[in-house]
Amino acid sequence: AHTHSNTMSPKITVELLRHLRQAMKNSKYITEPIQAYIVPSGDAHQSEYIAPCDCRHEFICGFNGSAGTAIVTEQHAALWTDGRYFLQASQQMDNNWTLMKMGLKETPSQEEWLISVLPENSKVGVDPWIIAADQWKNMSKALSNAGHSLVAVQDNLIDAIWEDRPPRPSTKLIDLGLKYNGLTWQDKVTALRGKMAERKVSWFVVTALDEIAWLFNLRGSDIEYNPVFFAYAIIGISNIKLFVDSKRLLHPAVQEHLELDSPSKPELTIQCFPYESVYTELQAVCAALAPKEKMWICDKASCALTRVIPKAHRSAIPYTPLCLAKAVKNPTEIQGMKMAHIKDAVALCELFAWLEKEIPKGTVTEISVADKAEELRSQQKDFVGLSFPTISSVGPNGAIIHYRPLPETNRTLSLNEVYLIDSGAQYLDGTTDVTRTVHFGTPSDYEKECFTYVLKGHIAVSAAVFPNGTKGHLLDSFARASLWDSGLDYLHGTGHGVGCFLNVHEGPCGISYKTFADEPLEAGMIVSDEPGYYEDGSFGIRLENVVLVIPAKTKYNYRNRGSLTFEPLTLVPIQLKMINTDLLTQKERDWVNDYHRKCREAVGAELERQGRKVALDWLIRETLPIV
Amino acid sequence: AHTHSNTMSPKITVELLRHLRQAMKNSKYITEPIQAYIVPSGDAHQSEYIAPCDCRHEFICGFNGSAGTAIVTEQHAALWTDGRYFLQASQQMDNNWTLMKMGLKETPSQEEWLISVLPENSKVGVDPWIIAADQWKNMSKALSNAGHSLVAVQDNLIDAIWEDRPPRPSTKLIDLGLKYNGLTWQDKVTALRGKMAERKVSWFVVTALDEIAWLFNLRGSDIEYNPVFFAYAIIGISNIKLFVDSKRLLHPAVQEHLELDSPSKPELTIQCFPYESVYTELQAVCAALAPKEKMWICDKASCALTRVIPKAHRSAIPYTPLCLAKAVKNPTEIQGMKMAHIKDAVALCELFAWLEKEIPKGTVTEISVADKAEELRSQQKDFVGLSFPTISSVGPNGAIIHYRPLPETNRTLSLNEVYLIDSGAQYLDGTTDVTRTVHFGTPSDYEKECFTYVLKGHIAVSAAVFPNGTKGHLLDSFARASLWDSGLDYLHGTGHGVGCFLNVHEGPCGISYKTFADEPLEAGMIVSDEPGYYEDGSFGIRLENVVLVIPAKTKYNYRNRGSLTFEPLTLVPIQLKMINTDLLTQKERDWVNDYHRKCREAVGAELERQGRKVALDWLIRETLPIV
Repeated sequence: AHTHSNTMSPKITVELLRHLRQAMKNSKYITEPIQAYIVPSGDAHQSEYIAPCDCRHEFICGFNGSAGTAIVTEQHAALWTDGRYFLQASQQMDNNWTLMKMGLKETPSQEEWLISVLPENSKVGVDPWIIAADQWKNMSKALSNAGHSLVAVQDNLIDAIWEDRPPRPSTKLIDLGLKYNGLTWQDKVTALRGKMAERKVSWFVVTALDEIAWLFNLRGSDIEYNPVFFAYAIIGISNIKLFVDSKRLLHPAVQEHLELDSPSKPELTIQCFPYESVYTELQAVCAALAPKEKMWICDKASCALTRVIPKAHRSAIPYTPLCLAKAVKNPTEIQGMKMAHIKDAVALCELFAWLEKEIPKGTVTEISVADKAEELRSQQKDFVGLSFPTISSVGPNGAIIHYRPLPETNRTLSLNEVYLIDSGAQYLDGTTDVTRTVHFGTPSDYEKECFTYVLKGHIAVSAAVFPNGTKGHLLDSFARASLWDSGLDYLHGTGHGVGCFLNVHEGPCGISYKTFADEPLEAGMIVSDEPGYYEDGSFGIRLENVVLVIPAKTKYNYRNRGSLTFEPLTLVPIQLKMINTDLLTQKERDWVNDYHRKCREAVGAELERQGRKVALDWLIRETLPIV
Repeated sequence: AHTHSNTMSPKITVELLRHLRQAMKNSKYITEPIQAYIVPSGDAHQSEYIAPCDCRHEFICGFNGSAGTAIVTEQHAALWTDGRYFLQASQQMDNNWTLMKMGLKETPSQEEWLISVLPENSKVGVDPWIIAADQWKNMSKALSNAGHSLVAVQDNLIDAIWEDRPPRPSTKLIDLGLKYNGLTWQDKVTALRGKMAERKVSWFVVTALDEIAWLFNLRGSDIEYNPVFFAYAIIGISNIKLFVDSKRLLHPAVQEHLELDSPSKPELTIQCFPYESVYTELQAVCAALAPKEKMWICDKASCALTRVIPKAHRSAIPYTPLCLAKAVKNPTEIQGMKMAHIKDAVALCELFAWLEKEIPKGTVTEISVADKAEELRSQQKDFVGLSFPTISSVGPNGAIIHYRPLPETNRTLSLNEVYLIDSGAQYLDGTTDVTRTVHFGTPSDYEKECFTYVLKGHIAVSAAVFPNGTKGHLLDSFARASLWDSGLDYLHGTGHGVGCFLNVHEGPCGISYKTFADEPLEAGMIVSDEPGYYEDGSFGIRLENVVLVIPAKTKYNYRNRGSLTFEPLTLVPIQLKMINTDLLTQKERDWVNDYHRKCREAVGAELERQGRKVALDWLIRETLPIV
């Protein structure tokens, strides 16, 4: 897997900071000097993963973790990041930078810190394209309460000083075809307009890249791991405006797919505009709005675009109708996800069989397993790439939840330590994300005990039956109850939505103790189920399946609400050696055996078909029933 | 138990509405005519239960349920209430009123309805003392978005036309003494000031009646079921201002308790003011604030008081430090709550033993059981009154969650129907709240099955072990899992905080699927655990214990967080006849036997001491172990 940077020597930032501080006073960019400049992570679409041209906090401070906000004042420079990245950030930044460890009590918030260091009546600048509307609001309020002001700086000051900034990617667009999508983009637009009409909304500004990719049944490769492309869309009741680099539309297949030359219906005519013109075009649309017309925009969209829409017309929503529609997979997508998971399981069965042979040689490392896993996955049909950087971790590295092997941390797999691998891929037919924790020697009683609690939690969620309308966060404690009983826990959520050949993390549903505004689970939604346990300095355990929400048959049906449960899509054996079966109830033993029977049937058939005999033998041995 | 009204004939409101509409144009009360007047339920302290003088929605429309908002325009009059009260409201209101059934899709919100019926640029009036600051904000925003305005009408227009309005109660205040409180009011004030200093807050406006009663270790009987008294307090770092009817302070015991004549320390001097002068006194305090001084007020306090505090000084908080301090009971309070629950159990054992003998005679009704329960409780030491109106319900009445027996709905107890009783009392040493569901003949298999699922849910919460810092809402699904497995559920929360000789419902913790801003559970907090199941038209099942949060011993202790669990304070047998023991796990059977052993020991000893032989025999029979 590609890593942004394998070096841990700090970036020298003296000159860069001098340039940035000059830009902060330069009337070429700003009418009045600003006393602080905020560099949020993220791009103009609030993407989780970003393209190299958008890695602005990395450029200015050297830290290349995915989450970090840099703030530079005339005297100070500070970076806020969370516990995953404390070590990495401290190694990658030079002493011009102060590391602000988020989540620690003594660490000031960005607002608090700004207020403590700024002279009176300061101006704090930020690129309004990179900051979300809701974040702007909070920051602006806090600053103005303290006598300062937040100002939008239209020219990005990092871009202004970034001499060799990579260009914005403009990769080839691919039309997946109905075989993978199940619905034409025309049908999706029509359904979306139905939702708009229902709520008397006449326009919808689409800013999330995965929503645009899903709506138009197109994929790109502008951002690593995420098959999306840079674009905006403005959908009206009888208009479709697509903002994308025009070169990308020259390909005949794309032209045909979007019916650019001969739209089937007038209201399905796509008007194409350059990516950059979304701002002026949105202004033009807004100028022509009738008095009571409403326009939807996600409250996580950029401040810049949000503020184009006059308040009286703006309807900011936490989740867009596209986000919701995309989350409920159609039968074709479900079929594709199932196939993708079987192929993914084939690769992992091969991997584990290979590991058993290779580990005793003492040459297998965290990085080499990650590479081998990618190689095996790439042999599968319709493989596109990984869906996120592989977490491959031995012993104590497993306790670092978002660990990613680097040459200087790389450990060798052995018969003495627990090994955790969390990995996934993009296939044309679906996205996978699976975690298995295994031991190639003899696990200790304590390791087995912890693994078994995690397994019990995994089963409690996977086998849960719950009424229609239940939100995912209500299931989170089921995953923890067994750990809690013994005084254990894990400090992350239990599950996230998973896209279909799209982002491996998507809204609007999830399973977490954090009460965010999640939407109720619905049949057809796909989420992960991944409880864990992490013993600092020793080992990490996580057990993750991607699961599909399906209707459940129940004895009764209170108020005709109907019930739901989960069906595992991931079909990779759970290592029996790690289980203390005495701790399982009969129901849990039955669940394990039933799950392994499914793995053997579906993945066994595919291994057979692909003639992968060694892996098939491994699968059969690993799926023997337990008693 | 006293009921406000036993009659169901509608109140004639033609004249009243005419008077109110005149008042809405009368320059005596308002500078400009208003086109609508809102009459919220509740009092100036946002109390759940209210005194007769505050039953304004009842006066104007006749409906006497606890929750209801009336709105009167020049042409219309409408009342919003929830599903508990649809029948009652429709029977108590005449045809001048439209019943707005909250929770039904087709029912407009108050804002939507106002906007649909009002002429352009209307003024909508409301008494700013009765509406909470956060409610005002929402209503005002919705109205002004539609071109109207919400205006504060200082004189309450209902009071203006209410000729025989009862006076505000001013009952005798009682000083409980350290024996019941465990902490002096002086220590409580000092601890509160510590919290204020920690957050750099120099004033705190106390508006909730139970917070004032708890802080000053005083109780009153101004509101039925709630031993509180009408008062406000403003606490400064070196000031205590108490606003209460001055007659109440003349009693020597109260004078001595509050050290009115000879305060032990200058900063513990209580300045007393008339109840009504809180507004002008708060104005005076605010006028003297230094530039950066902050003042706490609960965001549920009245709009009138909240707006006295200039925004720059106002710190509106969802839960006050008193609310939090009150929720964590001290050892004396815990001991008192335990005693109160044993005495309460004695009364209920007597009741159930009596019922077994009396029911076959065919003369026992829902109302007569409620009366008998009150009589038996009143024989116990330190009994003060009921803690809420008794829910006593037979068969189908049990499926009405907030049922209260009335002469026209009163059913006779028999050997053929399930009986549910949810009741509780105020004792000087504690507050109780217990629900038991029993059958005096032979319950059906289905009734037993449902009861057993509810019991499993009750045990799952009561026996849950969870880390320190866990919020109560994370435990809610434990109570539902068994019901969900069979397609059943209940449409209410699982638990609420319980005061100690204070309100039976109190914040800031609870156990509910609704994600409100609850605070984490802490050792010493007391909540109810009350799952249920309701079969419309047939029967209702609920099983409620009051439980104390206590530290749990666990095998491991992840990150030294420590764990918590619950100890039942309620010690009333759970009817074995209703349990299908085949559906219980061994752990659950052990829990039932252990619980019944505790009931037999603690309550048996007290029954013995009180010489209640029949009830003791009943207790011993009802607590036999199950296998």
